[in-house]
Amino acid sequence: MVDAIITPKGQLDLLSKNELELLHSTSDSTYSTLFRNCALAVLSTGLDSDDGHELLARHADFKIDVVSSSRGVKLQLRNAPENAFVDGRMISGIRNHLFAVLRDIVYLKDQFDFWQQQGESTTDQVFRTLRNARALKPRKRPNLIVCWGGHSINGEEYDYTKEVGYRLGLRGLDICTGCGIGAMKGPMKGATIGHAKQRLDKARFIGISEPGIIASEAPNAIVNELIIMPDIEKRLEAFVRLGHGIIVFPGGAGTAEEILYILGILLNEANKGVALPLVFTGPSSAKAYFEQMDEFIGFTLGPDAQALYEIIIDDPIQVAKKMNKSMREVYKNRRELDDAFFFNWSLAIEKDFQASFHPSHENMAQLNLSRDQEVAEFAANLRRAFSGIVAGNVKPDGIAAIQKHGPYQLRGDPEVMAALDRLLSSFVDQNRMKLSGDYTPCYTLTS
Amino acid sequence: MVDAIITPKGQLDLLSKNELELLHSTSDSTYSTLFRNCALAVLSTGLDSDDGHELLARHADFKIDVVSSSRGVKLQLRNAPENAFVDGRMISGIRNHLFAVLRDIVYLKDQFDFWQQQGESTTDQVFRTLRNARALKPRKRPNLIVCWGGHSINGEEYDYTKEVGYRLGLRGLDICTGCGIGAMKGPMKGATIGHAKQRLDKARFIGISEPGIIASEAPNAIVNELIIMPDIEKRLEAFVRLGHGIIVFPGGAGTAEEILYILGILLNEANKGVALPLVFTGPSSAKAYFEQMDEFIGFTLGPDAQALYEIIIDDPIQVAKKMNKSMREVYKNRRELDDAFFFNWSLAIEKDFQASFHPSHENMAQLNLSRDQEVAEFAANLRRAFSGIVAGNVKPDGIAAIQKHGPYQLRGDPEVMAALDRLLSSFVDQNRMKLSGDYTPCYTLTS
Amino acid sequence: MVDAIITPKGQLDLLSKNELELLHSTSDSTYSTLFRNCALAVLSTGLDSDDGHELLARHADFKIDVVSSSRGVKLQLRNAPENAFVDGRMISGIRNHLFAVLRDIVYLKDQFDFWQQQGESTTDQVFRTLRNARALKPRKRPNLIVCWGGHSINGEEYDYTKEVGYRLGLRGLDICTGCGIGAMKGPMKGATIGHAKQRLDKARFIGISEPGIIASEAPNAIVNELIIMPDIEKRLEAFVRLGHGIIVFPGGAGTAEEILYILGILLNEANKGVALPLVFTGPSSAKAYFEQMDEFIGFTLGPDAQALYEIIIDDPIQVAKKMNKSMREVYKNRRELDDAFFFNWSLAIEKDFQASFHPSHENMAQLNLSRDQEVAEFAANLRRAFSGIVAGNVKPDGIAAIQKHGPYQLRGDPEVMAALDRLLSSFVDQNRMKLSGDYTPCYTLTS
Amino acid sequence: MVDAIITPKGQLDLLSKNELELLHSTSDSTYSTLFRNCALAVLSTGLDSDDGHELLARHADFKIDVVSSSRGVKLQLRNAPENAFVDGRMISGIRNHLFAVLRDIVYLKDQFDFWQQQGESTTDQVFRTLRNARALKPRKRPNLIVCWGGHSINGEEYDYTKEVGYRLGLRGLDICTGCGIGAMKGPMKGATIGHAKQRLDKARFIGISEPGIIASEAPNAIVNELIIMPDIEKRLEAFVRLGHGIIVFPGGAGTAEEILYILGILLNEANKGVALPLVFTGPSSAKAYFEQMDEFIGFTLGPDAQALYEIIIDDPIQVAKKMNKSMREVYKNRRELDDAFFFNWSLAIEKDFQASFHPSHENMAQLNLSRDQEVAEFAANLRRAFSGIVAGNVKPDGIAAIQKHGPYQLRGDPEVMAALDRLLSSFVDQNRMKLSGDYTPCYTLTS
Repeated sequence: MVDAIITPKGQLDLLSKNELELLHSTSDSTYSTLFRNCALAVLSTGLDSDDGHELLARHADFKIDVVSSSRGVKLQLRNAPENAFVDGRMISGIRNHLFAVLRDIVYLKDQFDFWQQQGESTTDQVFRTLRNARALKPRKRPNLIVCWGGHSINGEEYDYTKEVGYRLGLRGLDICTGCGIGAMKGPMKGATIGHAKQRLDKARFIGISEPGIIASEAPNAIVNELIIMPDIEKRLEAFVRLGHGIIVFPGGAGTAEEILYILGILLNEANKGVALPLVFTGPSSAKAYFEQMDEFIGFTLGPDAQALYEIIIDDPIQVAKKMNKSMREVYKNRRELDDAFFFNWSLAIEKDFQASFHPSHENMAQLNLSRDQEVAEFAANLRRAFSGIVAGNVKPDGIAAIQKHGPYQLRGDPEVMAALDRLLSSFVDQNRMKLSGDYTPCYTLTS
Repeated sequence: MVDAIITPKGQLDLLSKNELELLHSTSDSTYSTLFRNCALAVLSTGLDSDDGHELLARHADFKIDVVSSSRGVKLQLRNAPENAFVDGRMISGIRNHLFAVLRDIVYLKDQFDFWQQQGESTTDQVFRTLRNARALKPRKRPNLIVCWGGHSINGEEYDYTKEVGYRLGLRGLDICTGCGIGAMKGPMKGATIGHAKQRLDKARFIGISEPGIIASEAPNAIVNELIIMPDIEKRLEAFVRLGHGIIVFPGGAGTAEEILYILGILLNEANKGVALPLVFTGPSSAKAYFEQMDEFIGFTLGPDAQALYEIIIDDPIQVAKKMNKSMREVYKNRRELDDAFFFNWSLAIEKDFQASFHPSHENMAQLNLSRDQEVAEFAANLRRAFSGIVAGNVKPDGIAAIQKHGPYQLRGDPEVMAALDRLLSSFVDQNRMKLSGDYTPCYTLTS
Repeated sequence: MVDAIITPKGQLDLLSKNELELLHSTSDSTYSTLFRNCALAVLSTGLDSDDGHELLARHADFKIDVVSSSRGVKLQLRNAPENAFVDGRMISGIRNHLFAVLRDIVYLKDQFDFWQQQGESTTDQVFRTLRNARALKPRKRPNLIVCWGGHSINGEEYDYTKEVGYRLGLRGLDICTGCGIGAMKGPMKGATIGHAKQRLDKARFIGISEPGIIASEAPNAIVNELIIMPDIEKRLEAFVRLGHGIIVFPGGAGTAEEILYILGILLNEANKGVALPLVFTGPSSAKAYFEQMDEFIGFTLGPDAQALYEIIIDDPIQVAKKMNKSMREVYKNRRELDDAFFFNWSLAIEKDFQASFHPSHENMAQLNLSRDQEVAEFAANLRRAFSGIVAGNVKPDGIAAIQKHGPYQLRGDPEVMAALDRLLSSFVDQNRMKLSGDYTPCYTLTS
Repeated sequence: MVDAIITPKGQLDLLSKNELELLHSTSDSTYSTLFRNCALAVLSTGLDSDDGHELLARHADFKIDVVSSSRGVKLQLRNAPENAFVDGRMISGIRNHLFAVLRDIVYLKDQFDFWQQQGESTTDQVFRTLRNARALKPRKRPNLIVCWGGHSINGEEYDYTKEVGYRLGLRGLDICTGCGIGAMKGPMKGATIGHAKQRLDKARFIGISEPGIIASEAPNAIVNELIIMPDIEKRLEAFVRLGHGIIVFPGGAGTAEEILYILGILLNEANKGVALPLVFTGPSSAKAYFEQMDEFIGFTLGPDAQALYEIIIDDPIQVAKKMNKSMREVYKNRRELDDAFFFNWSLAIEKDFQASFHPSHENMAQLNLSRDQEVAEFAANLRRAFSGIVAGNVKPDGIAAIQKHGPYQLRGDPEVMAALDRLLSSFVDQNRMKLSGDYTPCYTLTS
């Protein structure tokens, strides 16, 4: 455990007296706890656990305080995890993450009540949070590739994500993931080498997280822009409005949630004219995985949904070429729509996909997972189901709820339940649900 | 008159859909008018008039709109004053000012209601506005000299302000003024040469304005950080919290207001330990001016107030040396008080000096200008009286009110009225009230 | 007098052991004396004397040494002129000049013998010296205006050069002069303000000097790229190969030399297709001066020479517009000729204009100043005559020679001698020959 | 094969007419061939061959020309190897290497004759070449780690070099190697990730090569400062004067040459007080390798030589900590010796180690490899022997000579020959001599 005083570098982190007080560790505001827990998660990067609940328990004596000084704000840490330091000095990337957490929690505290009162739209909230994080770069051409995929993938899949990242990096493309390890780290690590060879020292490695998940998916230290969105729905919206293309690697429930989210949106008639390239890819060994996923999508959302993505197996160069080429189409598309390069205003996102879903046992039980509904609505409900499973697997609140009330009950028509069972069972068999240890499902499926 | 499309450069000016709509010229929101009028003022730099009312009348057909594009926000101007352009292209400094106006009006709109509701303190509001304008530089040592003085000064006095600025610039000191010409431009122009000789290309020339005055005191084009505070009280607070030392050159009613403001604050017991060097200076020909001012201060606020400043006549090098040396004291003082270099939190400012004073005829008439009150309160009231006179002289609203209701009535005990009369008359005699034309007083003094 | 240790800033000044030894003040190499004298000149900026001989005599006890340290090279000064310092610290611009002198003297020492052996062409030598000084900027569009004119001009003319500089600066044009004061400083000072308004913080203010003249024309402190060419011929070539346009302000013998140099070159058939705009300009009061100069040119070089320049009286905006517009033509011209923007290789310069002319009494007496020769040759000889007069006026060696041998004898046919007499007499009458004191001609004219 | 026009980026590459002509592909100057061959090598990065002779033969139709343009110098390539391009555009790192080759060949051509005439010392030549390459950074604290080791190492050893590089990078240390793959690439690749985590975007990855070897050891694309020294002796001197610490990984003949070079120098009494940390390291599997090397050194140079290095097995963090700590000692040492951080002037290097050794069959045969000589002389001769073996293995000239005259004959006393035989045989057995194919020794050992 390490005690340390940390000063920011190259960022303007200035807090008013008011803001300082509310975050103080002795204050009992929600925000001070939120800040502490997110900070702890950020410091835990590189640890081989994805159990957020356990992390918080293990570091009960960790403390963080914001103190002001003549030269600006400093962070005072007590009992911080040692792995964030090299020879007693905090790794710069992690230091920056700490100040990003500070920035986003302060902004959240500052704005949240106000937005509620003003009835500010979700999209505007997402825009403002990203703007406050300086993540919107006005004069940059489209080049940001969102990479989705599991945190718990095998060595071969991990190497494949690195190779794809390397090929993207060689083409000057930037990377955005959900933070964490596995498919969220590999593309960045590979792109680092690609960018180095191309002498691109301003490359962006954006990690978008949320308070609930950050403890189990600590941002890897290559992330050089960390953004914490208030909840999973705003986080998903941030991905699709900020990114210019999406690559999906193999993954588990979280990846399924992401796939259903983007398909649900792209199925919307209003988004017919919006360019947003979508590729599923993995090594040869992942071929079966994608066939299964494709089958599930075909069965639940139909061939229109299947037409929205391209599956490329074992060909990193092809993936990178495809994405690079698509960037020119996205560029053209935004110009035609007179839409910003840095924020995809044109994409219509229905309330169903924006409203916060709290995966309580009751809410989970009431989800309609049958095919007797609009396809987009169905996608939204399936998305919520997977979202709940992620919470039950790795989010501290979800884990606690499962410990207390037992597994979630999911209901739907028999064919859907059967398809879902096949998919989820394969996630379990392939160890995609958790990093380590045996997996006990946090759900039961009932027709 | 020029029509033009202006894009920002080197600044991140990103607006949400909501923000764009509210500023649109066809919207009839107060903010859209406010934005238009401030923008017009900014474009009028270099014109030889300080009649804001007249400026707005003359350019009735000027229009400005914010439009979004793939690369960010642009400004669309119609019938803009020609002097802001060189060979049809807008001068970069003025372009930056336009986007600063946009930034500050959007922020004002965004935050004002919220602050009112939340009971946010005035000081916090000032802090936040300056932070939003990126005017707070956390890792910079104290070096910002606020220069106050009249916009309507003679050639000799103007050359003197340039020479002082040159000597400050040679010592690496930055300049902050209230925008405008005369004593607000000279020090910047001089410092530009001093900085050039010292190869300081990141010098700061901060201009702090307010919507009411900007039309009559357009920011000169050397200002490279323009900040628009909501009203005169917050503007004055911004000066004294941002600056590390203050130089007062000869001036009229506005300068008198500024002197009374800072003296009223420094007379506060709570500020005994706060280092804030204050120098009055001018060429030999201004000696009588400062003697008269000193006498007025002695008569109204007493010798304690006189002890707060130093008068240096005709010695620019001495002024610059004194300020440069004081910067080390301010540095030490901030360290001792554990206060920020970039914002003087330690300075106590009473409500009397923070509350907005609206110089209606009624409010002006009710001011107590007699000596039968606390000295700080007296300073506050005298400050308000001069503030009203400035409004009646050059602010569009004030001019309109005087045209409608005749001169303000100021009341106080006979000796004070006599002293005030001597001071104001000398301002009139020395042409310190207005740039051009005969001056008709906007006030009458009654015992 | 000041003793000081000076370190470079932002420049890579690295010397080998060898180079250090040769420059040591105790070494009796020519280069160590040359370095000392140039350094002294650089430190004397701002002094009101143009008598280089006197300067060296006055500062007999000045010493400068180059010392190496862990962090690179430092300069150790003893008895340095005080005016180069502000509160005991050397002005950054002057410090940079000192290191520029060091760089150029080292390069000269290093390369000169080698070039002689290798028969390297003069143009290649000029190119290499400028490249070594990093004065060649490969990806910059043409925008460098050379300003010629006298160091001893009156207040009105000086203000006019500032105004022209201001208008050039507003148009983003950079300035190159021969260092020194008067017409060599004014345009830079004005342009500094213009660049500040346009937020151009990378503006170039190039001063090109030579060892013989630097003592009498110390580079003003706004010069941010000081280059010392080995002799006047290479200096003149540096001007015309580096610059993209030339403005001539009123001046004396040196300005006449410059005019004859460029006209002699442009009269060369080979240069017909090379774009190099040339403007003579001054305030209304200088109208007669330019008429006289035009007449002299017409009389000696004929109407072809007169067609090469445009005279613009009292219209700074017009001068700046003309130059700005010409830059596009120069751009096009260089593209057509496939010539570099940063070095005018296309310009043919005959040996006559490249060969060093040493103005000994003998050489001066042998100059053919009659019209019975080729016009370009005539221009070359007239150039040499004025060059000698400059030496006799202000260069230490020239002054010493005149003191010893009396005035130079210039010979030519009666009409030319009469025209020359009229021109030179007017220079004397208008105080264009020296900064101060009565002027005793350093020449006699004989038919 | 690709044809392309390449422009430099962020470098000032300006050539005079003279320089351009001499490098033209139709000129038959040595330099034009040298330039072509080095350029070809640079373009061949990533190819799995270290046979320089074969590379040149395979690309007989490759052509490169330097052409001038309005914006500076461009390179025109015909039939360039495809692997230097991504989707038809040259990888930036490789493009920079091409211009580095151009810079160094031009400098070599320019200076070589001159130095010969002037009797410039070898050390001065090394200094000047590095200065011209801008490799000397005056205000940087010691942090450059030279990594030596074989290009032909196994996967485990390669991963180990990456891990050491990662740990060095996390500590902000820069890397310098001899270009090429294997132990010359691994540390850079690892450090890239370490630097990325520490947000160090100005990290230096220096590759020092020589014309003879570059074809067989093409600089990997992570190298961001490529320097080509004229021969192996100046290259070795560049390593030890530029670097602040040395790590030796397992390798073959080239590595042995490097070890003998540095030991021979450090054994010099004059270098007793010079801090230059030296560590031999590798994974557990390389333990035997270093024992053998240590034994060979003990046998030939004695325990004094063995005391000059530390062997660390399988502990990358320890290696990095040791180097990082040593940097503070080097810092202190340079300050005490008043020596530059950027160039180790203090290190005495005897003529024996500076004089070019041409490994002709005759010269190799005459090497005294017996113990009946001074230990430093013995080290110098052993160094030459290994240098010749490297030439015979991979340098085009050496390979050609072996093909023509058969293996080199090396002679020495029986014990030394036996020890040498053991060492070389182990290199052969462990595949350290060549990247691929069976190895036929280019030497025979005779007592």
